[in-house]
Amino acid sequence: METREFEALLRAKTEELNRLIEPYLPPEEGWQRTVAEAMNYSVRAGGKRLRPMLMLETYRMLGGEGTEIEPFLAAIEMIHTYSLVHDDLPAMDNDEYRRGRETTWKVYGDGMAVLAGDGLLNLAFETALGAFGRVDRSDPAALGRVAEALKVLAGNAGINGMIGGQAADIEAEGQAGSVTEEQLRFIHRHKTGALIAASMRVGGILAGASREQLDALEGCAQDIGMAFQIQDDILDVVGDSAELGKTVGSDRENQKQTYVTLFGLERAKELVEELSEEAVHKYLDGVGREHEFLEQLILMLAGRRR
Amino acid sequence: METREFEALLRAKTEELNRLIEPYLPPEEGWQRTVAEAMNYSVRAGGKRLRPMLMLETYRMLGGEGTEIEPFLAAIEMIHTYSLVHDDLPAMDNDEYRRGRETTWKVYGDGMAVLAGDGLLNLAFETALGAFGRVDRSDPAALGRVAEALKVLAGNAGINGMIGGQAADIEAEGQAGSVTEEQLRFIHRHKTGALIAASMRVGGILAGASREQLDALEGCAQDIGMAFQIQDDILDVVGDSAELGKTVGSDRENQKQTYVTLFGLERAKELVEELSEEAVHKYLDGVGREHEFLEQLILMLAGRRR
Repeated sequence: METREFEALLRAKTEELNRLIEPYLPPEEGWQRTVAEAMNYSVRAGGKRLRPMLMLETYRMLGGEGTEIEPFLAAIEMIHTYSLVHDDLPAMDNDEYRRGRETTWKVYGDGMAVLAGDGLLNLAFETALGAFGRVDRSDPAALGRVAEALKVLAGNAGINGMIGGQAADIEAEGQAGSVTEEQLRFIHRHKTGALIAASMRVGGILAGASREQLDALEGCAQDIGMAFQIQDDILDVVGDSAELGKTVGSDRENQKQTYVTLFGLERAKELVEELSEEAVHKYLDGVGREHEFLEQLILMLAGRRR
Repeated sequence: METREFEALLRAKTEELNRLIEPYLPPEEGWQRTVAEAMNYSVRAGGKRLRPMLMLETYRMLGGEGTEIEPFLAAIEMIHTYSLVHDDLPAMDNDEYRRGRETTWKVYGDGMAVLAGDGLLNLAFETALGAFGRVDRSDPAALGRVAEALKVLAGNAGINGMIGGQAADIEAEGQAGSVTEEQLRFIHRHKTGALIAASMRVGGILAGASREQLDALEGCAQDIGMAFQIQDDILDVVGDSAELGKTVGSDRENQKQTYVTLFGLERAKELVEELSEEAVHKYLDGVGREHEFLEQLILMLAGRRR
């Protein structure tokens, strides 16, 4: 697929996802208007909707054709967004800008930003639970798939998933010299990998994937997550602040252990390449359906193409 | 029921609930050990487990005999606890003590306390989703009751419930003079009433209550929530700091509009009495089963007995 074709497809799919997500955002009215505004400001800050995109592409690759995926698309984006809102808080990373806009707490205050994050996490589950209304209520198997997808979503977002990675990351701060590769791998796998894995697994589960297919999706997602995170470490060293829309060099400033400080820039780049190759050719090809866009998306996520 | 008998029953039931909740708390191990410790510190800070108690008593009053209620008992306490952890943050109320112990952020730092709160909210849903495994998977009606209970839990905890009340409360701060009764009622109904209503509704739904019974439970819960909150306002004026285990007089210090500032102490006390009478005699009696302990519990919640 040519770059121009891929980029046009990517834009179209991002817009499709924005249309699908929008109806699940809260109305900005009543006494809770401000918190709803803060939630919407955070979600509408944009981005490419990569997690719901992975979810939807996986679902379609495996033959999924229903609408019960839609609430899950909104839910995974809400979970991703809330994690950024809380991450940016003065109590956490104290970031004032993201994607070139002021962060939620800068605009609404940090108390309201705590609540907006809580609101988004909670709304993610309220929203995803709506998927029960999109399947045949007299069909226990369909109900079971929705329940299973909800469990994967919740499990991967929690302390054995994303939150666990964030907590380990906080603890690793400042102790750069003594952070081990094992610890760093845990942080990356959980902080970033868990939601990517949830995206692909939920797509697979709802489409009725087999156990083997779900295992392959998990392996693929773990590789993508790791490659994505190492790429992030690399960009913090070699990237351009204006182009990325965020500060670079902050890892060094914060004395943060990264794959670059552990292995050097060249080896880190090799690792990204190896992981993305494995994601596509060891795992994704085995799932065995047409997936050209998904493959290109994975390469992009792994920083191999823009 | 005599006071001594009620207090002994209350203690026994609190202990039963502690035993039921404990297995759902996260193990303190691995790289996420600290966040798990912070979560457990928060939940184990104690209290009488009033929300799960209301849930379980309602369930039993309506003839519920299964175990699918158990994950929900843990879940509602986790949601209540996370709301306290985030409420106490420097970004919110900046409270250093609760129930005579240091608050979570004082012990673990405010970044970890944000994550511990997130972890508890997320774990609440992970836990409650486990209820699907406690009912017959081939029975769509039983699966439907669990799904319905999950929706009520999530809805009442979110921005149309508890979080909405907290957000409205933050906005009302400092504008004491201009806060209307309508606004104050919204805050109380949502900040406090929503989780109490969720407790009773979830108990009712899982026990298979009729639409009329659920409506009565909702009315009862709304009255309890309001009475509980007005009682809180009263205690901030007339209460004893040591006995309550928290600072009193903070509402006046923060120029906070309350039912006491709006209506005066005497009328506020009358309102508590009227609301608790209505909760029991207009609503609960209509549900029509044996509920002596539940009635006493409601009177206690409304500050009519200790």
